[in-house]
Amino acid sequence: FSDGVLAIIITIMVLELKPPDGAAFGSLKRLLPVFSSYVMSFIYVGIYWNNHHHLLQAARQVSGGILWANLHVLFWLSLFPFSTAWIGQNYDAPAPAAAYGFVLLMAALAYYILQRAIIAHEGRDSLLASALGRDWKGKLSPLIYLSAMTLAFVSPWLADAVYAGAALLWLIPDRRIERQFDHRP
Amino acid sequence: FSDGVLAIIITIMVLELKPPDGAAFGSLKRLLPVFSSYVMSFIYVGIYWNNHHHLLQAARQVSGGILWANLHVLFWLSLFPFSTAWIGQNYDAPAPAAAYGFVLLMAALAYYILQRAIIAHEGRDSLLASALGRDWKGKLSPLIYLSAMTLAFVSPWLADAVYAGAALLWLIPDRRIERQFDHRP
Amino acid sequence: FSDGVLAIIITIMVLELKPPDGAAFGSLKRLLPVFSSYVMSFIYVGIYWNNHHHLLQAARQVSGGILWANLHVLFWLSLFPFSTAWIGQNYDAPAPAAAYGFVLLMAALAYYILQRAIIAHEGRDSLLASALGRDWKGKLSPLIYLSAMTLAFVSPWLADAVYAGAALLWLIPDRRIERQFDHRP
Amino acid sequence: FSDGVLAIIITIMVLELKPPDGAAFGSLKRLLPVFSSYVMSFIYVGIYWNNHHHLLQAARQVSGGILWANLHVLFWLSLFPFSTAWIGQNYDAPAPAAAYGFVLLMAALAYYILQRAIIAHEGRDSLLASALGRDWKGKLSPLIYLSAMTLAFVSPWLADAVYAGAALLWLIPDRRIERQFDHRP
Repeated sequence: FSDGVLAIIITIMVLELKPPDGAAFGSLKRLLPVFSSYVMSFIYVGIYWNNHHHLLQAARQVSGGILWANLHVLFWLSLFPFSTAWIGQNYDAPAPAAAYGFVLLMAALAYYILQRAIIAHEGRDSLLASALGRDWKGKLSPLIYLSAMTLAFVSPWLADAVYAGAALLWLIPDRRIERQFDHRP
Repeated sequence: FSDGVLAIIITIMVLELKPPDGAAFGSLKRLLPVFSSYVMSFIYVGIYWNNHHHLLQAARQVSGGILWANLHVLFWLSLFPFSTAWIGQNYDAPAPAAAYGFVLLMAALAYYILQRAIIAHEGRDSLLASALGRDWKGKLSPLIYLSAMTLAFVSPWLADAVYAGAALLWLIPDRRIERQFDHRP
Repeated sequence: FSDGVLAIIITIMVLELKPPDGAAFGSLKRLLPVFSSYVMSFIYVGIYWNNHHHLLQAARQVSGGILWANLHVLFWLSLFPFSTAWIGQNYDAPAPAAAYGFVLLMAALAYYILQRAIIAHEGRDSLLASALGRDWKGKLSPLIYLSAMTLAFVSPWLADAVYAGAALLWLIPDRRIERQFDHRP
Repeated sequence: FSDGVLAIIITIMVLELKPPDGAAFGSLKRLLPVFSSYVMSFIYVGIYWNNHHHLLQAARQVSGGILWANLHVLFWLSLFPFSTAWIGQNYDAPAPAAAYGFVLLMAALAYYILQRAIIAHEGRDSLLASALGRDWKGKLSPLIYLSAMTLAFVSPWLADAVYAGAALLWLIPDRRIERQFDHRP
């Protein structure tokens, strides 16, 4: 089900990608900030998708509390299109850059709560609890978003760079770990 | 399948959350009524989602009549984005507040009919029939929505407060019961 | 999967239901034709949903040909929002009423082709072939839509009435048969 | 899940199909380029859907790398509505026709990478590796798109014709092979 919501969030972001008025390649240039913010948000949604996929595989049973924790994550993810559109239209202003970080922050916290709810339900010795381990990335990310939010008031570009860096943090090492894991016989 | 429709209803409501014209935090203030109505409707959709999840788990077989009763629920839920957008744009007028309650009322009645259809199909001694018990919340809610609709003509704000209260009524006790249920070994 | 597409078709139709400009009940009156066309198309999508559900349950295996026949049905159903919006905006003109019937006609023919493809794949003695029987409704409907399309040039209202009648034709008897079938032990 | 995204991509393209201003059949004529580009993109999405369906059936297990390769395909497919809308609005300009080909090209390359990722995971002797065989269509298509992109600067119409031809290339032989395969006892 969450797959459906994540798919829809991508949809709404795509809707912001309106074709340019002109018919020449030059008219695409004005779309660049909107397009860049779309790419970054697409990657963030992909990260949540990927992690979420593994998280729910680990959860064998779903309680009402977990459903609500999940809805809470989806609520903040559902604000991605809003913050993506705002940053895309005002890429050089501090407020949209900070708001983008705020939504990332709240989504990260909501995801953390969801993990806690599932672990509480599955037990401390469960597959998930050991798979997450110390979960340093889950604990580091909110701090990164917070610092980027304050950086936004110095330079929105710097904040964007930090958001992109935090996405890479999730993107790259996970794939490496995954592969080691997969190639075992 | 209903998951898909509920996800889509959230989508359409998110579409109403257009980024503000300005690039400052102050420009977010004008979005407050639209945002609040989004949050309330998100919670209501979440309540239906959660209940619906448990309801369909209890139903082991689906007949044509149940499919239509389900579509009937979805029809009224599909009007949520409409009533949410109207109340968000005219938060101090009585008609949108009453219309919001009307859609809630019809959705609650349609949900009640769906429950009846499933119980009729599963039998009075079924898991669902005993799980629902006297279902006082299902019977109380329509009365609350009706009284809020009349209150809307006195004060739209009062009606909104009652809608929010009715949402909490579903939200909080369900989680408590769920947890007691879950923590049994 | 088709469930997803059908859910989305409903979504797009809901998007046409924009909140009125005013905040009084009177401003809802202007939405009446758009709302009526939404209700009718919602019912038609519901009919396809219900029938499609039973059809794919009967199909045990899916070939590439069936997938394409299914996509063909979805193509014509995906034009429902277009024809619904056009008829909703011009409820007293013949062309939109005839176009609405054309889309219904093509969807019905595409559905007939899908049925044939599945029966060809499952075999003449299959569950589906015997369940469909002579399928008089599947054969009658295209004729009804064709005659309503010609009626549209006499009176769009008459055509709309015939479309509504054809919907009832599918709606009512199916439920009755279903119930008889369901209540057997 | 990818089904959901593909369904949504169709949705967004349908959203471009706005009802005409007039109420006469003549007003539909102006929609012809938008409608044609919708039909072509619908068929391309259908091709990806069909192939994707068979591809994921062959993949028995999903790793993080495959999930990301899949998201990469979906990213380029998610740009279909954008390029479809641009070509629909400027059907006689070279840039939109070339951009349409570029998105097709990138989607084809991303799909090729996804195939490689799944084969790498499943093993060279897997069902998928032998089913794909030499995969000449997968290797030919990118070349066709590239040449059509250059043709677009000579004549956008010619480029469109090549895109349509490449779609038929995928459409027709696959159905024939499928049928031979299906009719075996």
